[in-house]
Amino acid sequence: MLQDPADAIVRLTTSTICGTDLHILKGDVPSVAEGRILGHEGVGVITDVGPGVSAFHPGDRVLISCITSCGRCDFCRKQMYSHCRQGGWILGNTIDGTQAEYVRIPHADTSLYAIPADGDEEALVMLSDILPTGFECGVINGQVHPGDTVAIVGAGPIGLAALMTAQFYSPASIIVIDIDDKRLDVAKAFGATTLINSTDGGAAQRVMDVTAGQGVDVAIEAVGVPATFDICQAILAPGGRLANVGVHGAPVALHLEKLWDRNITITTRLVDTTTTPMLLKVVSSGRLQPRTLVTHRFALDDIMQAYDTFEHAAREGALKVVLRNG
Amino acid sequence: MLQDPADAIVRLTTSTICGTDLHILKGDVPSVAEGRILGHEGVGVITDVGPGVSAFHPGDRVLISCITSCGRCDFCRKQMYSHCRQGGWILGNTIDGTQAEYVRIPHADTSLYAIPADGDEEALVMLSDILPTGFECGVINGQVHPGDTVAIVGAGPIGLAALMTAQFYSPASIIVIDIDDKRLDVAKAFGATTLINSTDGGAAQRVMDVTAGQGVDVAIEAVGVPATFDICQAILAPGGRLANVGVHGAPVALHLEKLWDRNITITTRLVDTTTTPMLLKVVSSGRLQPRTLVTHRFALDDIMQAYDTFEHAAREGALKVVLRNG
Amino acid sequence: MLQDPADAIVRLTTSTICGTDLHILKGDVPSVAEGRILGHEGVGVITDVGPGVSAFHPGDRVLISCITSCGRCDFCRKQMYSHCRQGGWILGNTIDGTQAEYVRIPHADTSLYAIPADGDEEALVMLSDILPTGFECGVINGQVHPGDTVAIVGAGPIGLAALMTAQFYSPASIIVIDIDDKRLDVAKAFGATTLINSTDGGAAQRVMDVTAGQGVDVAIEAVGVPATFDICQAILAPGGRLANVGVHGAPVALHLEKLWDRNITITTRLVDTTTTPMLLKVVSSGRLQPRTLVTHRFALDDIMQAYDTFEHAAREGALKVVLRNG
Amino acid sequence: MLQDPADAIVRLTTSTICGTDLHILKGDVPSVAEGRILGHEGVGVITDVGPGVSAFHPGDRVLISCITSCGRCDFCRKQMYSHCRQGGWILGNTIDGTQAEYVRIPHADTSLYAIPADGDEEALVMLSDILPTGFECGVINGQVHPGDTVAIVGAGPIGLAALMTAQFYSPASIIVIDIDDKRLDVAKAFGATTLINSTDGGAAQRVMDVTAGQGVDVAIEAVGVPATFDICQAILAPGGRLANVGVHGAPVALHLEKLWDRNITITTRLVDTTTTPMLLKVVSSGRLQPRTLVTHRFALDDIMQAYDTFEHAAREGALKVVLRNG
Repeated sequence: MLQDPADAIVRLTTSTICGTDLHILKGDVPSVAEGRILGHEGVGVITDVGPGVSAFHPGDRVLISCITSCGRCDFCRKQMYSHCRQGGWILGNTIDGTQAEYVRIPHADTSLYAIPADGDEEALVMLSDILPTGFECGVINGQVHPGDTVAIVGAGPIGLAALMTAQFYSPASIIVIDIDDKRLDVAKAFGATTLINSTDGGAAQRVMDVTAGQGVDVAIEAVGVPATFDICQAILAPGGRLANVGVHGAPVALHLEKLWDRNITITTRLVDTTTTPMLLKVVSSGRLQPRTLVTHRFALDDIMQAYDTFEHAAREGALKVVLRNG
Repeated sequence: MLQDPADAIVRLTTSTICGTDLHILKGDVPSVAEGRILGHEGVGVITDVGPGVSAFHPGDRVLISCITSCGRCDFCRKQMYSHCRQGGWILGNTIDGTQAEYVRIPHADTSLYAIPADGDEEALVMLSDILPTGFECGVINGQVHPGDTVAIVGAGPIGLAALMTAQFYSPASIIVIDIDDKRLDVAKAFGATTLINSTDGGAAQRVMDVTAGQGVDVAIEAVGVPATFDICQAILAPGGRLANVGVHGAPVALHLEKLWDRNITITTRLVDTTTTPMLLKVVSSGRLQPRTLVTHRFALDDIMQAYDTFEHAAREGALKVVLRNG
Repeated sequence: MLQDPADAIVRLTTSTICGTDLHILKGDVPSVAEGRILGHEGVGVITDVGPGVSAFHPGDRVLISCITSCGRCDFCRKQMYSHCRQGGWILGNTIDGTQAEYVRIPHADTSLYAIPADGDEEALVMLSDILPTGFECGVINGQVHPGDTVAIVGAGPIGLAALMTAQFYSPASIIVIDIDDKRLDVAKAFGATTLINSTDGGAAQRVMDVTAGQGVDVAIEAVGVPATFDICQAILAPGGRLANVGVHGAPVALHLEKLWDRNITITTRLVDTTTTPMLLKVVSSGRLQPRTLVTHRFALDDIMQAYDTFEHAAREGALKVVLRNG
Repeated sequence: MLQDPADAIVRLTTSTICGTDLHILKGDVPSVAEGRILGHEGVGVITDVGPGVSAFHPGDRVLISCITSCGRCDFCRKQMYSHCRQGGWILGNTIDGTQAEYVRIPHADTSLYAIPADGDEEALVMLSDILPTGFECGVINGQVHPGDTVAIVGAGPIGLAALMTAQFYSPASIIVIDIDDKRLDVAKAFGATTLINSTDGGAAQRVMDVTAGQGVDVAIEAVGVPATFDICQAILAPGGRLANVGVHGAPVALHLEKLWDRNITITTRLVDTTTTPMLLKVVSSGRLQPRTLVTHRFALDDIMQAYDTFEHAAREGALKVVLRNG
């Protein structure tokens, strides 16, 4: 139901499950109320719009952004939509989300994107969250430049999204680090030039070895635990950038006694989805193939099975699991 | 004595003592050998040059940079002179320094700056280290913009150098935090708009109060201990920058569990002295008056007394202590 | 009358006349229909809002931006509001403007700014157009840095706005060039460090003389005729930036045969008003005093007299002429 | 013969001919004295160094930069080596160049680059001038971003170098415009997505057609005559960048009456070769294959024939013509 003049109602045709949804189910995200419909990614068709919506009409096919933005608050005017005073990450968090038949999208004019009639929904739904997250929080914040040496710690969907989009800037080498050899194989297929299994605790040393002791220009943290952050801070060359993408639940020890004079930069970021229009253009040009991230498909009615597959991603060889509706 | 074709010998007329020199005397800097002449700041007159020196000649008045740069290694070509493969901070560290009558300057062509005959030596010697350090590591890395709210934690010479140079970019307000009310008074005279004494542990909360709960755009850490870094990470607005200037001897706890989604940037840096030519221009235009940092003067022969004054800076009301030679 | 859900009606309390308005009266702006109410600058009080407006309410005091932005088109999402698909410069151009008792503001949520109850209206109305124009088109596009040598050609209101806001970045010197000695005197009071009367055609040569043959880092064109653009292109140092602000009615000869290897940058821009929130903050902090641009005040009923004064600005010593309404 | 302590003597093994050399032969470059040995591109082996050279030794294999830089003047310290006070483009211009058995390289430490023993000389010699020129003056100055629409006017060697390096940033489409269908075919093989033959004068209109009336984000001028510059200024989208690479001999009419409010940026640049280390890294990683630019090879003794081939490039299907020596 429309609640506000700026709302739109979208009938979902494709959605997907995010690692954050698993965190919610474990009770890690206290802002999520009991009974909340989860999901902040989706593609669908508009069925109704409020009187304040002017850019969209019923029947329009749209991509839903994981970030809702009012477009007018101080943060939105700085393009930091992640911190929108009335939006940010609210879908499947403080309001009902996209793992459903219908979803209400507040501030629809600035939170939806028109998509072409012949657009590939499985590719496009990767642009709701995962692609802009890997790109903005990892690649843009990490300032990947042509010729750079990049390390990505974590080869899950987000790390792979960073791996795909890091190649927009033609780094000379991309080292991917994970504890799962199968995921490392996937990373190789996605363009990694060096693979390191970090199970034995020697990943940082091996990065130094393969970089002739110089370290990396960019380290992208795509896991969210102290051990992976530690690898990142240990392998930065002077002048290097550490772009944190992972969701952390605990403090980390930052070794300023070693880093104070190393000219490094550390960034954190909740995705702003400012690059969504650009990503849509790149997908449309064929230079980016996000569909390759999708390993499993389920009907929306089989959502429990979909969650089970995604939760046991290692066992199932799952990356992104898509939910289809009609 | 000249040792290398690129060397120059400088007869010092003015030098000064840095907080780092005190650290060395306490044994905190293991790279400094017993008997080393300290000092990495100075103004003087060239008395001899090697055959590889082309930009300077005996009789030239020069400013000595605290950073020696070869101008040709990979770091120098990226203007990261701090990490020059053959230079960096070596004066008064791995080779004899400037608290002497004469000093040998390697890579003279790219490590010295010509100064005008009528230049004020006490102002200019502040450009050897302290001004570029406060400016590059604090203000430039902190990306101070017009209208910003800036906090500087630590009102010693480096914090004051950041305070002076932050005003190049017209922030709307500059909050200075220290435990010494006398230093806070000095900060007020140098342009601080809000003063906070952090002795009671409530500094972070007071910053949030005076910023209406928003926090600051830029926090400059100019002390180098966990407690001051903690203030900085606690007061950043979403999108804020934490520019570390302080020399740290221990790790700090970085609260990624709170910061992972705050879109913040943390930087560290050893000064590159890339801005020295610009600072010389600004001093020459009269827009910057670094002489105001000098509180005490001693003859070089009275260096022990100078060190005593500087070591008891709080008691003596000392900021920068100048050593004069002839 | 409200026409669209996103409209607001504003009762004007203060407005002003822009040089563009004079161009319109001379017939230079064909998009302006016969009988159009002119004016794109103003401060006032909201009297009515459409159902799609959520950020403002009747009774709110607001600043009107000269640029209307929908906040949702491709240009708005790139913060290039000047080229908004449904907005841009439309007030007093393709729809009725602010030199009236009431004005209809489309896309009110993203085209108005809340102002404090005790705000100085004469200062604030300078933020509708002139201050952001001088700042964005001149200073930001010109990339003024601390220590720079800046030249501003034209000391009318726009040139003075550039002069005021260039000082946000602490250039070492600001050369102002005009043909009117009285305006040059005003420029001196606003912070110019060198004044050049260009009546005799020797301005470019004199700039080279006062810069010891080096030329300037930034040249801001604030007139809009070939002669003033020529001065700008003749005085750029290698690496210099030429920021065009003036409205041009004819082509200029760009001397690429001299400039192709000079590493210069030339920019044009219609103001985007992206810096309005920042300028409001700086005015509020007292670091900017735009009221000093106001030389004459008239009641709205005396608008013909106001236009006469503004049209004969040289004779009248007029800069900005304010219209007051109740 | 060594003339200065900073000199090195290089025995050339590979050099090449530049379009500029043809201009010199026609008498277009008055700085070139009668009898001058031409050539500013080359790869070779050092045979002698002066006492001021520390980074290189006899026997080292080196790449010669077309730009000589002293590394210490004000322009060099800003990394604008093109305008070095004692260097810049001097090889084959004001001093003898590289189309010879030996060449003297002033400021050798900062004007040569070490290359690997197994480096492909034909690929590397493209990094003396053409690759950094296309990249720095065209791609970097044009600010090519992922998803951009780029137009390159001129498919000669420089235009192709821009085409190759523009792809470092993953534009969505690259339109190449030339009057020679054979060159357009080559451009297609190098990655152009749209080809336009401009012989009929309708190129600008066709660019607007293929961009749905929007114009391009980046236009790179790689010819150097008014007609090609005109195409560039006619096809820029609002916010677009026009990066001039071509060497111009005459002024152009800049249509400010249309462009003043279009938020465009025009740049000029003589290559600084600041990106040479990065390009070396990218070539070494295999991501760039500049050898593909070489169409013809001649022994140095057959230089007259090489010039003849290069001068009749269209007839001969020539791009870069390499000279081999021993």
